[in-house]
Formats: sequence, structure tokens, C-alpha cells
Amino acid sequence: MSRRLLVVGAHSADFVWRAGGAIAAATRAGGVAQVVALSYGERGESGELWKVEGQTVDNVKQSRHAEAEKAASALGAEFVALDFGDYPLEIGEERLGRVVDTVRAFAPDVIVTHTDTDPFNPDHPVAHHAVVRARTLAAGAGVQSGFPTIAPPALFLFEPHQPELCNFTPTTFVDITEVILAKREAMAAMASQVYLQTYYDERAGHRANHARRASGRSEIRYAEAFQRVLPQVVAEL
Amino acid sequence: MSRRLLVVGAHSADFVWRAGGAIAAATRAGGVAQVVALSYGERGESGELWKVEGQTVDNVKQSRHAEAEKAASALGAEFVALDFGDYPLEIGEERLGRVVDTVRAFAPDVIVTHTDTDPFNPDHPVAHHAVVRARTLAAGAGVQSGFPTIAPPALFLFEPHQPELCNFTPTTFVDITEVILAKREAMAAMASQVYLQTYYDERAGHRANHARRASGRSEIRYAEAFQRVLPQVVAEL
Amino acid sequence: MSRRLLVVGAHSADFVWRAGGAIAAATRAGGVAQVVALSYGERGESGELWKVEGQTVDNVKQSRHAEAEKAASALGAEFVALDFGDYPLEIGEERLGRVVDTVRAFAPDVIVTHTDTDPFNPDHPVAHHAVVRARTLAAGAGVQSGFPTIAPPALFLFEPHQPELCNFTPTTFVDITEVILAKREAMAAMASQVYLQTYYDERAGHRANHARRASGRSEIRYAEAFQRVLPQVVAEL
Amino acid sequence: MSRRLLVVGAHSADFVWRAGGAIAAATRAGGVAQVVALSYGERGESGELWKVEGQTVDNVKQSRHAEAEKAASALGAEFVALDFGDYPLEIGEERLGRVVDTVRAFAPDVIVTHTDTDPFNPDHPVAHHAVVRARTLAAGAGVQSGFPTIAPPALFLFEPHQPELCNFTPTTFVDITEVILAKREAMAAMASQVYLQTYYDERAGHRANHARRASGRSEIRYAEAFQRVLPQVVAEL
Amino acid sequence: MSRRLLVVGAHSADFVWRAGGAIAAATRAGGVAQVVALSYGERGESGELWKVEGQTVDNVKQSRHAEAEKAASALGAEFVALDFGDYPLEIGEERLGRVVDTVRAFAPDVIVTHTDTDPFNPDHPVAHHAVVRARTLAAGAGVQSGFPTIAPPALFLFEPHQPELCNFTPTTFVDITEVILAKREAMAAMASQVYLQTYYDERAGHRANHARRASGRSEIRYAEAFQRVLPQVVAEL
Amino acid sequence: MSRRLLVVGAHSADFVWRAGGAIAAATRAGGVAQVVALSYGERGESGELWKVEGQTVDNVKQSRHAEAEKAASALGAEFVALDFGDYPLEIGEERLGRVVDTVRAFAPDVIVTHTDTDPFNPDHPVAHHAVVRARTLAAGAGVQSGFPTIAPPALFLFEPHQPELCNFTPTTFVDITEVILAKREAMAAMASQVYLQTYYDERAGHRANHARRASGRSEIRYAEAFQRVLPQVVAEL
Repeated sequence: MSRRLLVVGAHSADFVWRAGGAIAAATRAGGVAQVVALSYGERGESGELWKVEGQTVDNVKQSRHAEAEKAASALGAEFVALDFGDYPLEIGEERLGRVVDTVRAFAPDVIVTHTDTDPFNPDHPVAHHAVVRARTLAAGAGVQSGFPTIAPPALFLFEPHQPELCNFTPTTFVDITEVILAKREAMAAMASQVYLQTYYDERAGHRANHARRASGRSEIRYAEAFQRVLPQVVAEL
Repeated sequence: MSRRLLVVGAHSADFVWRAGGAIAAATRAGGVAQVVALSYGERGESGELWKVEGQTVDNVKQSRHAEAEKAASALGAEFVALDFGDYPLEIGEERLGRVVDTVRAFAPDVIVTHTDTDPFNPDHPVAHHAVVRARTLAAGAGVQSGFPTIAPPALFLFEPHQPELCNFTPTTFVDITEVILAKREAMAAMASQVYLQTYYDERAGHRANHARRASGRSEIRYAEAFQRVLPQVVAEL
Repeated sequence: MSRRLLVVGAHSADFVWRAGGAIAAATRAGGVAQVVALSYGERGESGELWKVEGQTVDNVKQSRHAEAEKAASALGAEFVALDFGDYPLEIGEERLGRVVDTVRAFAPDVIVTHTDTDPFNPDHPVAHHAVVRARTLAAGAGVQSGFPTIAPPALFLFEPHQPELCNFTPTTFVDITEVILAKREAMAAMASQVYLQTYYDERAGHRANHARRASGRSEIRYAEAFQRVLPQVVAEL
Repeated sequence: MSRRLLVVGAHSADFVWRAGGAIAAATRAGGVAQVVALSYGERGESGELWKVEGQTVDNVKQSRHAEAEKAASALGAEFVALDFGDYPLEIGEERLGRVVDTVRAFAPDVIVTHTDTDPFNPDHPVAHHAVVRARTLAAGAGVQSGFPTIAPPALFLFEPHQPELCNFTPTTFVDITEVILAKREAMAAMASQVYLQTYYDERAGHRANHARRASGRSEIRYAEAFQRVLPQVVAEL
Repeated sequence: MSRRLLVVGAHSADFVWRAGGAIAAATRAGGVAQVVALSYGERGESGELWKVEGQTVDNVKQSRHAEAEKAASALGAEFVALDFGDYPLEIGEERLGRVVDTVRAFAPDVIVTHTDTDPFNPDHPVAHHAVVRARTLAAGAGVQSGFPTIAPPALFLFEPHQPELCNFTPTTFVDITEVILAKREAMAAMASQVYLQTYYDERAGHRANHARRASGRSEIRYAEAFQRVLPQVVAEL
Repeated sequence: MSRRLLVVGAHSADFVWRAGGAIAAATRAGGVAQVVALSYGERGESGELWKVEGQTVDNVKQSRHAEAEKAASALGAEFVALDFGDYPLEIGEERLGRVVDTVRAFAPDVIVTHTDTDPFNPDHPVAHHAVVRARTLAAGAGVQSGFPTIAPPALFLFEPHQPELCNFTPTTFVDITEVILAKREAMAAMASQVYLQTYYDERAGHRANHARRASGRSEIRYAEAFQRVLPQVVAEL
């Protein structure tokens, strides 16, 4: 039963820090993963690149595209860029339609995106609302309709940088112990945000500590945290 | 991998309406289920029995014990009564110790109990707090300790009678289509609360409708709703 | 004291399932009710009609208009369609102005609409925000202003399909025992969503059970649940 | 239809500031009101009296009893003191039974008490939880039971001193314009907390302003705010 | 260490009632304050002016501009009007850019604006979201970027008219005892909303009472309440 | 202006991980700090010690006392043990009185304790409620009373192990860069919970990252997070 995992970020590097392990776990288990970047984070989140004298937006976008492709590749995922622009990211009716088309075309079992709140970021909540709305538009109301629909994907939010201030409560820890090297390789590809690599490596250790406490499974060394938004349907508790 | 399921109710019939299907699903899948009743609900929740002229508390407790055993048996579960009294249910230090012992002795994979709020019931929140505390006392802090511990069980809340007023948000629907006959048989054993049988039968149909919408799985005809309290640890999303 | 009740739905059938009884109760008591549909739900919520070979959007809209008019008529209400389109429903500045005009023209005592959240529907939250904003624009700030105003209507939210996931907490049960036949007749008119009739009929029974528990009034057999948004002003508790 | 109103406060003066107007409105409309004080607030809330040299607890309690009786009388209500002690107020099993008996004996249509949170007061939350539990114990589960029951009273919370910090959201404004003189007379009887008279008089003016904005009824000059806890059952919206 | 304080209101008088004291306190302490009005509140919040026969929007805007300048001057602040129009206030991409430019140009240490919710006002939440987003766009992500950035300002919300209904919880009381005369002078300048002067004068007294209870500092006679949105960084608790 | 800081933990090591830096910052600035342990955490939180063959509760308590004294000393604080027992910690009326006496005797400017929720710990919420109640009992109602009172201390909660699951939202970051060595020395004294040293050292680095983003102050390398419970009273924003 091969799973299809779709990760949508406001900027082209978001997927690496927040869901890189879960992507690698999915592809290693035989699943198919696609990463969609609504923008390159070219203006607001490309710190190292803007230290270069005479830098241009186009050049930053090219570098960020290459980095993201390399990182996605390390995780076994395909990278798709919608290039809507950042700081601010704006998603009107036409762009929403493109997000819906992307979701419908990939027909994921699982969608992962940002939380609805982020007082430190102007684009993350915009991405959240677009993805959540695109998901219901692609899945429809569960009845015959005037447009093609897909089965309703599960919906998860990945961990924001300051969880308690972003309305994030973890419901699900993914054990990424087996794929931590792949995540580190992907993080290493992100040359323009190099300062985050140590941070998220240590964070994976802390989330593993939380996961051990929640489960009693002492073999977990690295984990990522997610918040499931919609109820899960199971055969037993 | 046989699961051990522990369902703790304030009164001896609570488990039937709220978790009867999940119990039957667990035992049918080869699991072991125990039902613990903190009281018989003898004073407050035995409507039909108190219509009998000259009724006594002792007699009601006997009838309720027989009913609960029959219902548990229909679901494949063992029934244990702690007989703490109801309306009000009071759980002091000594009784809390008995709940801890019960949890430790059974060593469940999953514990299910009431929500923390119920403006229509004086005993349900008392049961919630005792069970939640007993669970952490039995599991300890995940380190060596001065008392025997068990692996930390998953914790779920079952559906209260007025969900939105009881701080209940479903995170998990259990498909009980295959075991609905067992649940109906268990409900039929509860002669003292006969008016609830139609209600919870229809409710299982409605929750199935919700589960179909959440999952796209059209074969679900009956479901029960639960709220998972602690994070789940998984291998992939 | 004849009451004026305005019910605004994202799609043309929403009012029937969620507020049909309250509408019938209002008109039977001598009140005047208007139903406003922001769209026909023609693309996303017309399941049965799209099973017809060669179906078109225009044809679906005509069928839906006829159904809604028939249902409104069974409840004693007038039906008004704004035809903004569905899946997605978009309400920009000009369309908001039309909603404001509609509210101002009818000058209701009570407005009823969707909740602010619905993870299963892309249009319901859009409708909520437009109606709430239109209400304050029509009523103004309670002072003289540069445009005509109406007295501030009470604001209620009707019950969504999955209440706990839609930020819905009932504050008000309307006893619809006396008008259940009118509601059933209205539901029967909704041929394109026939599968919801049994569901909402049973739901009315469950809400009556909740209302009996809250009030002690055993004669209530059918009820609908609503959430009052703004404080009520009363002469005594 | 004469209403029976029961107001329960942690200390003997609470009812005056927070619900004096609603009590007067109820009795003026032909209703019957009882005020229950769980303690006299003798140690913690009798500021002026403790300025007297050589003051004793017994003397304070006598003064507070006289004040509360005078105030209750001005509002047309009966005053009952349970004298459980304050700072801290403790309510164990036996005392809870006495609160239940008090509720059952009066058989109110409406109970009013404190909010569940008050970071400025050690006794108010204790009173809240005792009253809420006593209410459900007195009303039972809506079925025949092993003890006498009363019809379930409506439940309101009165306004705390710092509303936003006490988990208080007003759902109901009572127009007390007609009875403001009675409330002022009752407040004037509270010699030991004289500094609160101006505060709550102005507050009644502010709540009237809020009530005017919510209702459009410009004749309201004084109001009190309450939070309804359980759903209301009505014939129409 | 001179502080720079920026107060942004939806309408030109909002700053006076809700933050007039805090502005005066800042400027008296040697700080610099700027008030930005997104609109004049010309259509919806200029009650007295619209009682004048033959009144026009342009004339109202002129009067409001003069009033706001006079009030700002009394508080020692500069007044800037963006004139986006009110009832409804709409802020699209271009206008958002102007708000960002305004924030960046002033480079405040502290920004103060509306709460995110106001069921009595159509424009306040619009202002909130624009200001919060403009703040993050002006400050950037704390790294080098493709546009000029400022240090991240602290963010506060001022007190709305009906706090509990507007999602407002005070975290900070500003002692305005020393500057109450300046605030009164500023309020007196607002001829078009004269009825609010007594209200907010009394409110300052009540908030002082709350501040005394929170701090034990009995010398506070007037205060204003604010909600801090982002964590504070301090040298000690 | 020397500050008095009181930190109350359920177990004798809690203060080190969660508030060690804030304590050292306070004492380095000339303040006085006292640490109160309600229990030694002897049964539930002394992992390493219980690995010793033939270990006894008394012996564990002695070791824990010595460790805590050493750690407190490294931070410049006094250590006080109330020895109420752990797993479970129970605080009845008499013990609450002892906590009140402790608070009153020290007369702190600031109290720091646990959050109100912790699904992984049976004792932390018990400690929270006792400390919050003791604080209001020691401070009284701000008026003359029948017992001695102190000025109301500020109230903070320290960071729990799984913040998002413990109802913790940081409002305040304390910069502990200057005192990190003292905190490390204190942590090193806690031989029975050695596995937490790396965890909380890395955590201090992460909270510094958050503090830098919130304030723009790039010199912060280590920080601790706290949640302020009651409003702050300030001279300007």
C-alpha cells in the first residue's frame, strides 16, 4: 500500500526543516512524495545569498531552486515550484485554482503544510489557508459534483519555529531515526539558511525524547512533530 | 500483536453506549478488554429499576452488576466493579490507589474514559481526573523508580452525551460496522437505561456518516467517536 | 410582536437541514422569514443531479432554485438567490455590498448563518465572514452615520454537519415538535441531497433529547441547535 | 409564572455587587429570591471592620450578617448563611451535601454563582465548583433515581471583578434601569466594603452602554452582565 | 533611551480613547509617538457631525482631521492619515504596502493596534490583520533580505469597547495617573464622539482599581489596559 | 531595588532545569532567591538512584536533599524542603497552610511554579494549584484583613517538559547568557537525573534563538521561557 505524501510550503526551504524526516520515511517505505513551494522565499528567507554583493532576485530564485531540488532529491521527493513571490505571498482566486489543480493532479493520501498562525512570518498563515481550502475544493463534498474530485487526503501541520506562539499542538510524532542521515543531507543542501541546521538537528533529538515519554519506546533517537487536523478513521483503538 | 484495552466508567453502564463497539472490535481482533466501573450508578442512573415499588440500593446494585456483566460478556470483555458509590462519586487518596493498582495490574495498551467536563453529570469529571492521574502514577516518569511501573498506555476519551458542552472534540472514529450486532446485544442487556438504545444506535449511524466524509471510505455504516489525548508515535504519516 | 428572521446559507439547500424547523416556528408564530442563498451549490453540493448524463451547471441551478423555493414555501418563507457561484464561493467588495443591501432591505430581528470554521467545506466559512461583516455594516455603530442603518439584529449560527470540528457550541435549542411535519416536507423537496433527510430527522430527535435534559421539559420530541453569538438583553434571568 | 432565583456567593457581600440588580428585577416581577452565603468573608473581605481596634472574627461575622440581611431585604430576597469560613473556604463531602440540600429545598428556576477562575481570589473558584456540582446532584440525570430530585435550574455566572482574567464572557445583560435605586440601597448596606459602591455603580452604566450597542434599545441606563452556562430552550429564535 | 511608539487605528479617533494615556506617558518620558489613522471613520463613526443638516463626507473628513490633530497634539504625538475609507475599510495589496512603508519609515519600538475580533465593528479586525502583517513585513525574518528591514517592534493591542467579546485579555496596565489631564484634553478634542468621554474616563478609574489589585501599588488612580502579543525579553523576572 | 524570587517545585530538582538561569540572574543582580521543594521526587523522579541495589526511600531523600542544596548554592539561592511525598503528591488543608506560611514568610516579589496541566506528571498540576491558591491567601484581597498579608507577588510559570501539551505559552524570555555557567554547574549537581543536562542545555540555546527573533537582540546565546499569569503594571509600553 504505497502512500502519496504532498508537502506544501510557503517558501522553498520550509519542507526540509519541518518535514524532511517524514518525507524520507515515506519514500523509504515505498511511498511517493511531492514537495510544492508556493514561493522561493527569495526576498525574505535567503539570508546568506543576500550577503553577496550585487545579488538579484532572479539569481536568488535560481540558487534556491537548485538547493530545493537537491534537498528534495536527498529525501526521494519531487520538487515543484509555483513561484508566487514572497514577503508578501499573495494568493488570489486564480492562484488558488493552481494550488487546487496541483493537489488534484497528485491525488495525495496525506497533505502537510503550515499552521494557521505565525506572528513571526507574514506568509505562513497565507499558505495554510490556501492549502486547507484547496484540499476541500479538490476533494469536494463526498458526492457526485460538477468537477473531478479526489479521495479526501489526511491533513497534517508541520512544526513551526515557535510552536506555542503558532497555535501548534503536536498530535503525532514520526520516528525518523532510520532516515536522519537523509534529512541531514537535505538540510546541508540549504546553503542560504545554514544557521538552521544545528537547530533542527537538536530539535529532532528533543522531539524523540518527547516521543519516548509518550510511547515508552526507548529506541527512538530522532523524531518530527506534526498536528493532525481531521479525525482519523481506524479499525481499533 | 494482541492489544489490551481498559475502559473505565464512572457508572457501570457507561462503557456500553460510549465504547461498546470499540471493545468488541478489540476483542474480535484478538485483543483483551477489561471494563472497570467505579460505581454502579445505583442511585443516579438506574431509572427503570427505581420505578419498582420498594426498590433498595443493594438490589439495584445487584441488578446493575448482572446487566454489566452480561453486556461486557457480549463484547468479549471482563467486568470489574470497584463499587465506590455514585451521586456523588468521591475518590480520595485510598481509592485513587485502588484505581492505580487496577491499571497497573492490567497493564493496558489503551485506556478509555470520560471527558474532563460534563455539566449534566456530577460524577463523570471525577472519574476523568482519577483515571488520568492513575495512568501517570502507574506508568511513572519513564525512569527507574521506587515502585513498579508499566509502559505508558495510550489515552482516549469516549463520546459524552452532549459532546460540544463536554469539551469533546473527536480525533478518532472507530469503524464498528462489523461488530454492531455485538454492541446491540450489549446495549439490550442494559434494562435499566432502555431509552438510550435507539439513541446510541442512531448515533453510531451519524458518526459513520462523519467517518465516511473524513476518509472517503463508503463502506462504513456504524462508527464510534473518541478523542485521543496524548501524541501518537508512528513510523510514517 | 411579529419577528423578522433572515437565514443566509452558502448554498441553496443549507437552510433546510440546519434551520428549517426554526423558520417554520417563526412563521407559524406570525413572523416573517426570508432565506438568502449566496449560491446554488450547483457544482459541489448537487450530488443526485450530477448523476444525470449530460448535466449542465445551468440546468442544475434551475433545479436547485425550484427545490429551494418549494422548501422555503413549505416553511412559510421567501427564497432569494444571489447566485455568486460555489466551490469556490468568492465574495469581494461589490458582492459584500449586495449582501449588506439585502440585510438592510429586510431589516431582520434575527440573522442565522454558518459557523466560522468548517474543515469539510470551502464555502461555509466564506459565507460566515461575509454575513457577520454585512450585519455590522447594515447596523452601523449605533450612532448617526453617513448611510442608512437598521437596528442591530440578533445573530445565531446554525448547526454544521460535524459540530465539534466546526467551532460550534449550542447555546439555544429551538423546540420544533409542533412544526416537524413542515420541516420534513421542506426536506423532501431537496431531491438532489436526498441522503440527508434521515440524518437530519434523527438529529432533530437527538437534539430534543439534549433539550429535555437541559430544561426538564419532557414534551419536546424534535429540536434544532443554534449558537447565539452576541449577548442577549433581558428583563430578568 | 413566578420565577425562583437562587444566588450563591462565597462571601456574604458577593451577591450585592454582582447580582443585586437581577435579584431586584426578579422580585419586582413577582419572583422569589434566595441569597446563600457560603461564608461571611469575615477574615478576607471585611476591610473596614478590621480597621477597628480589637476586632474579632465573631464580631465581624455578626456585622456582616446584619449587613447582608439588610441588603437582601432591600432587594426583596431572603438571606441564608452557611458559615463555612473563608480564606480559605473549604467544601468537603459533608458540606457539599448541605449545599445540595439547600438547592433542593429551594428548587430554583435559576442559579447564579461565581466563575470557575479568579486569580485574585482563593474562594470564588471553590464556590463555583461546589455550586455546579450541587446543581447536578439536586437535579439528577433526568430519570427516576434513588433520591428526590428537582427540575434542572438554569445556570448563570455573575460578573467577577476582573472579567477577562476570570474566564468570563457575558452572554446576557439584565436591564436593571428600573431597580437601580434598590441596588444602590443594597450596596449602601455593605459598610465593610464601601469603596466598591462607586465602582459597581459606574460599572452598571458601562454594561448598559454595551447592552444598548447589542440591542439598539436606547432606554437602558443600567445593566448587569451574566454568562449563561447551559443551553436555553426556546419556542423561537 | 527614547522610545518610539506607533499607534494604528482603523478610524481617526480610536487612539484617543484606547491609548491616549499611554501615548502621553511615552512622550512625557522623552519618547516619540506617531498616530496613524487608516481612515477618518467618516461614514460610520462621526455621529455628532452627521446630525448637521446637509453634511458631506468631505466636510466630515476635514472636521475629523482637525480633531485628531488637536488630540494628537495634546498627547505630544504626530498624526498621519492614510484616508483608506471606512464602513467598510478595505486593505488590498497596494494599501498594505503603504502601511508597511509607514511602519518601516517610523521604525517604532512599540506598535499598538486593535484586537483581531470585534463583533460590533466591521473595520477593527481588518486593521488588526493589516498591522500585524505589516509589522512582520517591515521587520523581515531576522536575516539579510532583499528589502530594507527594521528591528522587530513590540506589539500590543489596545482595549476594545466590549473586551470579553473581542478576544481581549489584558496583560499590561499602564499607569496614566500623571497624564490623565492630557488624555482628557485629547478626548475633549473629539467633538464628534462626545458621549465616549465620560465612559473612558470612568474606565480609566476601573482599570486603575484592577492595576492596584494586581500590583499592590495604591497610588495608581488612572490606568489603561493592553494585551502584549509577543514574548518580552528581559534580564530578570 | 533588590528583588525577592521564590521558586516552588513539586520535586526537588524541578527548579534547576526550568528556572536555574532565572534564579542565577536574579541573585547576580543583587536579588534574594529561595527554592521550595514540596517533595524530593524520591519515588518517581530519582532514576539513577533507584538503579542502586537495595536502595531505600530515606536514602534517596538524603541524596536528593544534598543534590538540591548544592544546585541551589551554585545559583546563589537557599533551598527549603517541605517533604510532602511524591507519586502522588497530596496537599490537604494543613499542608496548604504550610505553603501559605512559607510564601508569607519570604514575601517574594516574584513566584515561579509549574503549569496547571501536565499529562506526563501526576504531581505538577497539584503543585500549581497549591501555589496559586497559597499566593492569593498570603496576599489577601488588598484590604485590611483578619490575618497578616504581603504585597501581591508577580506570578510566572516555568517551562514544562512538553510545553504544547501542558497549556504553556511563553510570554517572557529571560536572557541567561551571562549565567549559563552557573546553571550548568547547578545541573551537574543533579546526579540522579543526569540525562536531562544535555537536553536543557540545548533547550536554552533554542529559547535564545526564539528570544533573538522576538527582540532583534543578536547577543543572546542562552535563554529560559516563562509564562506570566497576571497583568504587569508599567509606567510606559
